[in-house]
Amino acid sequence: MAPLLNFPLLLRFLGTICLLIGASMSFSFPFAFPVMAERTHLPPAAEFEQRASYGLIASMAVCFGVGLLFRFLGRSHRQGSQLFRKEAMAIVGLSWVCATILGALPYYFSGTQTAAGMPITFIEAMFESQSGFSTTGATVLTDLESPGLVPHCILFWRSWTHFLGGLGIVVLFVAILGQGSAGKAMMRAEMPGPTKDGSMPRMQHTALVFAAIYVGLNVLLTIIYFCEGMSAFDSLCHAFGTMATGGFSTYNRSLGGFDSPLIESTTIAFMVLAGTNFTLLYLSLIGRPRRMFRDAEFRAYVGIIGVVTAGVVFFGMRADDEGFTTLLSAVRNGLFQVVSVMTTTGYGTADFDHWNNFGRGILLLLMFVGGCAGSTGGGLKVIRIVLFCKILRLEVERAHRPRVIRPLRISGQAVDDPTLAHNILLYFCMVLAIFLASWLALVTLEPNSTWGVLESTVAKQSEQGKELLKGTLDDKLVDCASAVAATLNNIGPGLGVVGATRNYAGFSQGAKLLFVWLMMLGRVEIFSVLLLFVPSFWRRA
Amino acid sequence: MAPLLNFPLLLRFLGTICLLIGASMSFSFPFAFPVMAERTHLPPAAEFEQRASYGLIASMAVCFGVGLLFRFLGRSHRQGSQLFRKEAMAIVGLSWVCATILGALPYYFSGTQTAAGMPITFIEAMFESQSGFSTTGATVLTDLESPGLVPHCILFWRSWTHFLGGLGIVVLFVAILGQGSAGKAMMRAEMPGPTKDGSMPRMQHTALVFAAIYVGLNVLLTIIYFCEGMSAFDSLCHAFGTMATGGFSTYNRSLGGFDSPLIESTTIAFMVLAGTNFTLLYLSLIGRPRRMFRDAEFRAYVGIIGVVTAGVVFFGMRADDEGFTTLLSAVRNGLFQVVSVMTTTGYGTADFDHWNNFGRGILLLLMFVGGCAGSTGGGLKVIRIVLFCKILRLEVERAHRPRVIRPLRISGQAVDDPTLAHNILLYFCMVLAIFLASWLALVTLEPNSTWGVLESTVAKQSEQGKELLKGTLDDKLVDCASAVAATLNNIGPGLGVVGATRNYAGFSQGAKLLFVWLMMLGRVEIFSVLLLFVPSFWRRA
Repeated sequence: MAPLLNFPLLLRFLGTICLLIGASMSFSFPFAFPVMAERTHLPPAAEFEQRASYGLIASMAVCFGVGLLFRFLGRSHRQGSQLFRKEAMAIVGLSWVCATILGALPYYFSGTQTAAGMPITFIEAMFESQSGFSTTGATVLTDLESPGLVPHCILFWRSWTHFLGGLGIVVLFVAILGQGSAGKAMMRAEMPGPTKDGSMPRMQHTALVFAAIYVGLNVLLTIIYFCEGMSAFDSLCHAFGTMATGGFSTYNRSLGGFDSPLIESTTIAFMVLAGTNFTLLYLSLIGRPRRMFRDAEFRAYVGIIGVVTAGVVFFGMRADDEGFTTLLSAVRNGLFQVVSVMTTTGYGTADFDHWNNFGRGILLLLMFVGGCAGSTGGGLKVIRIVLFCKILRLEVERAHRPRVIRPLRISGQAVDDPTLAHNILLYFCMVLAIFLASWLALVTLEPNSTWGVLESTVAKQSEQGKELLKGTLDDKLVDCASAVAATLNNIGPGLGVVGATRNYAGFSQGAKLLFVWLMMLGRVEIFSVLLLFVPSFWRRA
Repeated sequence: MAPLLNFPLLLRFLGTICLLIGASMSFSFPFAFPVMAERTHLPPAAEFEQRASYGLIASMAVCFGVGLLFRFLGRSHRQGSQLFRKEAMAIVGLSWVCATILGALPYYFSGTQTAAGMPITFIEAMFESQSGFSTTGATVLTDLESPGLVPHCILFWRSWTHFLGGLGIVVLFVAILGQGSAGKAMMRAEMPGPTKDGSMPRMQHTALVFAAIYVGLNVLLTIIYFCEGMSAFDSLCHAFGTMATGGFSTYNRSLGGFDSPLIESTTIAFMVLAGTNFTLLYLSLIGRPRRMFRDAEFRAYVGIIGVVTAGVVFFGMRADDEGFTTLLSAVRNGLFQVVSVMTTTGYGTADFDHWNNFGRGILLLLMFVGGCAGSTGGGLKVIRIVLFCKILRLEVERAHRPRVIRPLRISGQAVDDPTLAHNILLYFCMVLAIFLASWLALVTLEPNSTWGVLESTVAKQSEQGKELLKGTLDDKLVDCASAVAATLNNIGPGLGVVGATRNYAGFSQGAKLLFVWLMMLGRVEIFSVLLLFVPSFWRRA
């Protein structure tokens, strides 16, 4: 009995990943020179840059060292040995873990501070790194604008991890995730590639096409941003944040800092594109745009954005929320925020935490919807929501007509996979279980001081303290739910203490580690990472 | 093509239900005389009783009238025609609707007031009636103790509907619900009855045995309460509330009003019994109590109560909550509240809304657990939770060992039903969808004034108003979630405005109607009622 896992193969693969991450760090290096890192609204600051550049070099050295060590350890790997499903899952999970840890090094070595006088801890650096690679966009950096807190080359690295993560996820979708039930439904005959079946050359071709579209859109958006008045540095960083549906900005006020309707509308358009299935983008490029509007997932995606925006505008104007005084500003703020949350980007222009309860409630639900399958968006994916609703409807009918068997249809075509319904329901239940367990853990273990309240025994001594505590208790339940939702679905900002104008810095280190884990789970659609923590996965078969 | 539904049969059946409800109202009649309605702590008040007794007579007259009309309209029904699955579902759903409407009449006709000077509306009467029949125990009656607001015969009717609802549900379980996936798993060979299969005589016998156990426990508990110092009236009402896992009390402070450790521990014991599968109670009675402790569901049930109570006591004492100062009082308050929420009874002795966040969070989750299948408890049922966890565990294993097929096991026996996993996941998803839709509707449509806050435009004019509004917004999300959870799972009290010391009176009429619908859905395990609202259910086949 041999161990089922091919460890030499795993190590060689991980070694390559480490080398690639090290190499990709070199792209941040030029931005250690103030002339490259000029931001639109802020003068470049040169203070920290030199130390930061040494930090970058140190990080690269570690990456190359670890990479070469892994490749050396895995030298017994024979060329051409087969990659089984189990190895593939292990590689995806472990690569993500490697990327998170190595990607944290630049933050840690560069002397980044989360706030004045607060050097970043390694867990916080991992949080920031994971948030980048998983294209979440949640941050622990309180102040991006004061000189001497966050070096500019680190700001670039932060956005660059978005780009790498987005690239990874579109390639990964073709290789692994597209094999799942939701993916299968979308990876139809139209998938770009030379042959009709899921053979290796075809998958490689598809992955290349997807990557080309992704890179092309990034370049295009950078140019557009530049023409709209952003500096080159800001254009690059925001293009990465938009196309990866990440949401890291280089300003504290996120994209709202530009206060430009032009930039906002460009961003809305590209967020929508980034959340669209790349197969459909490819088909539009080769002259078949009609296929896009016939697609059930894309129609649901656009439909949800439209209906929710209408609702947000209506209820926002009725409740006279901030930024909803005129119809134009209401549409501007509402549409931007709905698209930003739905595509799991998480850019903020308005503080939706002060909206009315319909707005807050629907955004909380929208976090779970996410983009389309085969896009860079996170969440459950629109196709799963569509299938979920169809399955429930079919089952209600089946309850009184047990003998009528009606097949599940997407875009008018019957789905012949009998396990599809089971897998969709299972995925919802997994997300539910993980969400509830994380929420309960966070509510239980996070001290009240995160909400700015003294420990309860002290607070309870006065009536006012009691009132304050009571308010905090309610906040805590909602805020924790939104923080778990925002990280599990790779959005970024949530409600309350993690709202659009605030960040995750206040949470305890343990909570940050939980968020790292949730972001990872959400990004690889749960199983690849969850399995790494199941003992039987590592045991002999 | 004949209509698929046998309408004459339906009408005859509903007519019988109406007649039975009318007849059962006569049991409240004696309590219109003060000597019968003596409460333990309060002197009997004779003011409203005479008018209320006329109201009762009027309600009975309506019931009999409607019942006879239905039976007359259904006279074309031929004896012996078969009862199909569809008819059975329609009967269950429609009977529940009938019971809700007719059960509301005594409240409406008797001049009951929800608060001083506020006569009960018909929707509120339906809420109270549904809450009784579905053994929820949620109330809109603000004051049960002031003379002249709620007549005593109505207080009795209120608790009596608990008894009837509980009786209905144990019989219904045998007839319909026990055929579902969760039920099937529990309705094993040990089910009481003469033959081994699910034949008619056997089911009738089982239903009779269940009913006898239920009535017997009600009588036993009434006697125990009486010996412990309650008046006859209070003993009856609280026994009904406990055994039906309902939770209506005859005092504003619920069972906490007695402040008696003896009464509380008796109640804990009988709540646990009421939440146990009646098959196991039957087996214990006929001398096979060991079967109970080998049962997976019962062990999980007791285990959850134990673990959660330990957690509540630990975190409650650490946070120094009210009533958690000594270990004894912590265990007393914690255990009572955990059992009360878990079994979906909803009696209150402590205001758990002021507990720490672990306590509040876990109680919110516990609301969804509920009692065992085949008990009077509501919620998802422990067996479904057990199966849910087992299915998720099996699926995680299956993800990396697709070829290893391991059967689902309960109490060591493999379940041979291939649709079981699908049905369990489906049920969770249905509950999730209904919960989220109702929560969003409630959050959106319920005015802020329910939370004691002026309309937002007024509140936003001052800084203090804004702060107050912000606090309210957070409360609203949590309170609405808890109100939906508490009604859908038939518990009664939730958090915040529907907390243990408050009630549902403040909600708008529309929200109350939504709660009526949720209580109904929860009680009949969704499908029987949901189908009534599906147009195709009524159409020709």
